[in-house]
Amino acid sequence: MHNDKEFQIIINQALEKLSLDNQPDNLYAPIKYTIEIGGKRIRPILCLMATELFEANYQEALNAAIGIEIFHNFTLLHDDIMDKADMRRGKPSVHCQWNENIALLSGDAMSVIAYKYIAESKNLKGILNVFSDTALKICEGQQYDMDFEKTDNVSVEQYLKMIELKTAVLIAASLVIGAITANASKEDQNNIYEFGINLGMAFQLQDDYLDTYGDIEKFGKPIGGDIVANKKTFLLIKALELANDEMVNSIDFWLELKKFNKEEKISAIRNIYDNLAIAEISKNLIKNYFLKAERALDSINVLADRKNVLENFYKSLRYRVF
Amino acid sequence: MHNDKEFQIIINQALEKLSLDNQPDNLYAPIKYTIEIGGKRIRPILCLMATELFEANYQEALNAAIGIEIFHNFTLLHDDIMDKADMRRGKPSVHCQWNENIALLSGDAMSVIAYKYIAESKNLKGILNVFSDTALKICEGQQYDMDFEKTDNVSVEQYLKMIELKTAVLIAASLVIGAITANASKEDQNNIYEFGINLGMAFQLQDDYLDTYGDIEKFGKPIGGDIVANKKTFLLIKALELANDEMVNSIDFWLELKKFNKEEKISAIRNIYDNLAIAEISKNLIKNYFLKAERALDSINVLADRKNVLENFYKSLRYRVF
Repeated sequence: MHNDKEFQIIINQALEKLSLDNQPDNLYAPIKYTIEIGGKRIRPILCLMATELFEANYQEALNAAIGIEIFHNFTLLHDDIMDKADMRRGKPSVHCQWNENIALLSGDAMSVIAYKYIAESKNLKGILNVFSDTALKICEGQQYDMDFEKTDNVSVEQYLKMIELKTAVLIAASLVIGAITANASKEDQNNIYEFGINLGMAFQLQDDYLDTYGDIEKFGKPIGGDIVANKKTFLLIKALELANDEMVNSIDFWLELKKFNKEEKISAIRNIYDNLAIAEISKNLIKNYFLKAERALDSINVLADRKNVLENFYKSLRYRVF
Repeated sequence: MHNDKEFQIIINQALEKLSLDNQPDNLYAPIKYTIEIGGKRIRPILCLMATELFEANYQEALNAAIGIEIFHNFTLLHDDIMDKADMRRGKPSVHCQWNENIALLSGDAMSVIAYKYIAESKNLKGILNVFSDTALKICEGQQYDMDFEKTDNVSVEQYLKMIELKTAVLIAASLVIGAITANASKEDQNNIYEFGINLGMAFQLQDDYLDTYGDIEKFGKPIGGDIVANKKTFLLIKALELANDEMVNSIDFWLELKKFNKEEKISAIRNIYDNLAIAEISKNLIKNYFLKAERALDSINVLADRKNVLENFYKSLRYRVF
């Protein structure tokens, strides 16, 4: 069995071998650029780990894993257009490096290339169904995300549903696709899906948490970016739910202010979060999702020591926070 | 066997049954709107005709045909964003009716829905390969089209390659997918692909021709739109190839003019086309593609009278012009 570092190398090697030096250059160069920028490759790693968990050769799932990673990067590319995000992983996003039309179309082509890899899967029909259902849910999640940015009073429940669709389902689907490749039982497909959903929820909520409470060196992004951008994260939504009138007024004041000192705004909002114990509430929620993930992993019907690799990977994600 | 009108009704009924009243509304309503605007349904009609040509029940190809039509409409939706086209089939395009982000994302979702229908195909692997290869070529064609709008000196050869990718391959793929459904021989798959490519080329070149020389009532669009918009059509590219210096100067003058009387510009450019016999050259080229299509249809190994339906449909397209 392979660990996450070994699988990451395998996946990066497979991605390097993609033949993307095709014409027209304005279509393929942005795809190459997007793939080469890198990333943690969490989804394909999980896919290959699930394949090995159920005692199949990871190579049988490699095409599907590559398809999943390409699809994930396609969604980031299109999200960056929609969010007008100038940077992605420290480099100019595609629509800034080229232009919006090129970003739109090369994203479309990436999603087709993703399907071309999925089409090389063992147990094609089952995997294709999971993949398309997931892809559609990701679109739904992104639309809810955009809708919420224009909506007052998003509830915690609505927010959790949104991140489940936008983030958790692809984590879960990656694992299930590995399991289907390895002919795992329906019951174990459900178990590993449950593991993935809860892991994905925890992972996204961690991102929200770390953006405000993270260690800048470990997190790799400036702290407080979400606060500066008025992003509707779990922290903000929960704070608005718990805040008294005075606090709500103060939050609204900062949200509506067009010109401000960034540090001052971050500190003011964090101060309100601290008064409401938002950090603790977040950490508890994250812990709960991790515990649910753990229980789902436990219930999978394979020998305990086959689960070590997934368990270690899950812990390495979990202890990003505490 | 069914004719084009019968198949059009069958396809429209199947499209009406799509369950698109899902949430979030901003994702699904634009998809519903796009599908309901209508269209000639040429691609799925050809798919079902090919299935019957090779003696299979058209219902076996209905899901694939629906997938093809949804995918075609997805490409139009995204093309309209890229081309900043305000209208589509007499109605506001999606990015005007909603906004660009919604148009982008609902397009992404449409392409996934298209794959969900393709996934219900008989002979899935073969059909999926044809479909994805075609989808990627369509992206390449659209990128060439955008590149050409910013390029001087596009050659006739480059232009023909572009419309082959952007338009003809999907016509051809629709027919091949019908043929694969019906387990047609490889040889006949190639024959019907050849028929489709040439039909598609003729069809697109007809569109170019009719935009300048068509009868407004039959064509359904105002005449001269391509000239007004400086669109690089076959007519313009061929004219620039054949024109003497004086004519080139005159064409360039009109292309560069920011403010002009539309009728005057259309008449001036048409005048140059007439002096260069562009209408005749176009009609000859279109006729050649139709003849090649006819020969490819002839070479398909089924009894001649099984081909009547496709032949009649092909003629109904052909005699839009002459």
